[in-house]
Amino acid sequence: MQFQTPYLMFLGDAQDALAAKTAAGIAYWRPDWCVGQLRLPGCKVDLNLPDMSLEEAAAEGARTLVVGVANRGGTLSEDWLPVLAEALERGLDLANGLHKRLTDFPALKALAQSRGRQIADIRHPDREFPIADGKPRAGKRLLTVGTDCSIGKMFTALAIERELKRRGQQADFRATGQTGILIAGSGVSVDAVVSDFVAGAVEALCPAADPNHWDLIEGQGSLFHPSYAGVSLGLLHGAQPTALVMCHEPTRRHMRGLPHYPLPPLQDCIDATLDAARLTSPEAAFVGVSINTSALDASAADSILKQTEDATGLTCIDPLRTGVAALVDHL
Amino acid sequence: MQFQTPYLMFLGDAQDALAAKTAAGIAYWRPDWCVGQLRLPGCKVDLNLPDMSLEEAAAEGARTLVVGVANRGGTLSEDWLPVLAEALERGLDLANGLHKRLTDFPALKALAQSRGRQIADIRHPDREFPIADGKPRAGKRLLTVGTDCSIGKMFTALAIERELKRRGQQADFRATGQTGILIAGSGVSVDAVVSDFVAGAVEALCPAADPNHWDLIEGQGSLFHPSYAGVSLGLLHGAQPTALVMCHEPTRRHMRGLPHYPLPPLQDCIDATLDAARLTSPEAAFVGVSINTSALDASAADSILKQTEDATGLTCIDPLRTGVAALVDHL
Repeated sequence: MQFQTPYLMFLGDAQDALAAKTAAGIAYWRPDWCVGQLRLPGCKVDLNLPDMSLEEAAAEGARTLVVGVANRGGTLSEDWLPVLAEALERGLDLANGLHKRLTDFPALKALAQSRGRQIADIRHPDREFPIADGKPRAGKRLLTVGTDCSIGKMFTALAIERELKRRGQQADFRATGQTGILIAGSGVSVDAVVSDFVAGAVEALCPAADPNHWDLIEGQGSLFHPSYAGVSLGLLHGAQPTALVMCHEPTRRHMRGLPHYPLPPLQDCIDATLDAARLTSPEAAFVGVSINTSALDASAADSILKQTEDATGLTCIDPLRTGVAALVDHL
Repeated sequence: MQFQTPYLMFLGDAQDALAAKTAAGIAYWRPDWCVGQLRLPGCKVDLNLPDMSLEEAAAEGARTLVVGVANRGGTLSEDWLPVLAEALERGLDLANGLHKRLTDFPALKALAQSRGRQIADIRHPDREFPIADGKPRAGKRLLTVGTDCSIGKMFTALAIERELKRRGQQADFRATGQTGILIAGSGVSVDAVVSDFVAGAVEALCPAADPNHWDLIEGQGSLFHPSYAGVSLGLLHGAQPTALVMCHEPTRRHMRGLPHYPLPPLQDCIDATLDAARLTSPEAAFVGVSINTSALDASAADSILKQTEDATGLTCIDPLRTGVAALVDHL
């Protein structure tokens, strides 16, 4: 999938920052591609982009309306359809990160065809993938894993890619979710792959490479998330990671979307992930913990980083607050 | 999905019994539904059903041609298409257990439409599933798990269902693969479900029930199979099993399809499965081990059952050789 830039970020009536994490991630990593944001009444998210109507965005040169609102379950509000239709009429493509296909709406699909516009349903790969064979392959691969969903796995992988490139290393971010795909320009939305082929899709995403090349693979979910652990395990096995980074948010009280499930203890999650990883990558090892301390002040953040370092024996960083250099030193 | 019976079993040019396990399973559990088998030149499998041409099968009243040959990766031989077309022309429906859709062949699809026949691509559920919520639910559930694929999980679940019903208990077999679905008349082919929804599909397959009711859920794959472990984990979490049965084949030397991967030690597989199960079902426990001793003589079979019982402390049965009564005594 290829996308025309720049983007207009559609935020719908998103109620919190996590719901708009697709849009926020793109705006952070590709600010030059984002001409503005389009918000509906009641939207409580602000990406600090100029608010624009579709007419204004088209005049500013926007080429693609990005549906950057990821609800739990990927539902799509029918209220959005007139906005999406108007975008097509004004000459924009649509890039949609929800499970629900925009191409399932006949009127939108027909409109796109008649206007020569593209609707990219990013979560629906249209190619087929092989069954994973688990064979060892050359190249170095780092996978970011997590204690929960939406906890910094993509951000950490992108930050490590940037730092490796800054040091002159060969490195490629490998996107496995809709935000990452819009940032990288390619990738596979693994949670939309038929379950039998998840590990195989990831093998195809990060194939054998030069022995000095690093793939920085975006993890998904958590082995401890009751809704999605299977996705995380297939991704882990297909990635065959030589290096793992555990991502964590120390103030989160329960698994995303499931108030009746507390977060797992960090060390349990590290141990279980390593056990599972070694099935296909016997030399896999954790090289660090990436802690999202955005909810803490500087002193509390320092403290949790140091505590976690003492408890796990691993280098602990916050990619935003401390950068990832200390972690990349281990690669 | 509903299927018209009786069936004609299409075996293609299957080279070994595992390749034809769908057909063999249906013939074993539903002999009255199988009027015959249709084999192509080179086929090395024999279900001990009458060999029939399509013309003969139609005359015997066959209503559905079951494509009961499951290749690794679910590929479909183009050589089969004329046979499938002739079946439609002779008034049979098609029920296909492969990943590859028969409805992807326009000529077949058009022919089925023009003749008013059904093509059921069993591995492609056309309904949508919810995201799993992991909430505790009433009813008793037993899940069969395994050290590998194709190792007796469906057979064991069906045998337990039969024994529970014989004892007057409320019990339902819950099918998660193509063979089971053709035997049960309903179910979800979980390896064909989009990965995000696997656990949710299984929650829907075995919903809350009477506290005395047993669901006997067919497991898939193995947590130790590099190609499919993610499917197994999603199924395990969605099933919320109160009881687990580990299925094993003691003479198998490597994971199905992967000569470079040995089978895991039985106890490692039990321990890892139990750890993972307890995320959504804290009281989950193994009630036994189901050992496929078909490759052994009676003395060797007795010996391996006793050894495994001593080593694991669990009741060990072979559903064919000893029956499952000793295991059902624990339920």
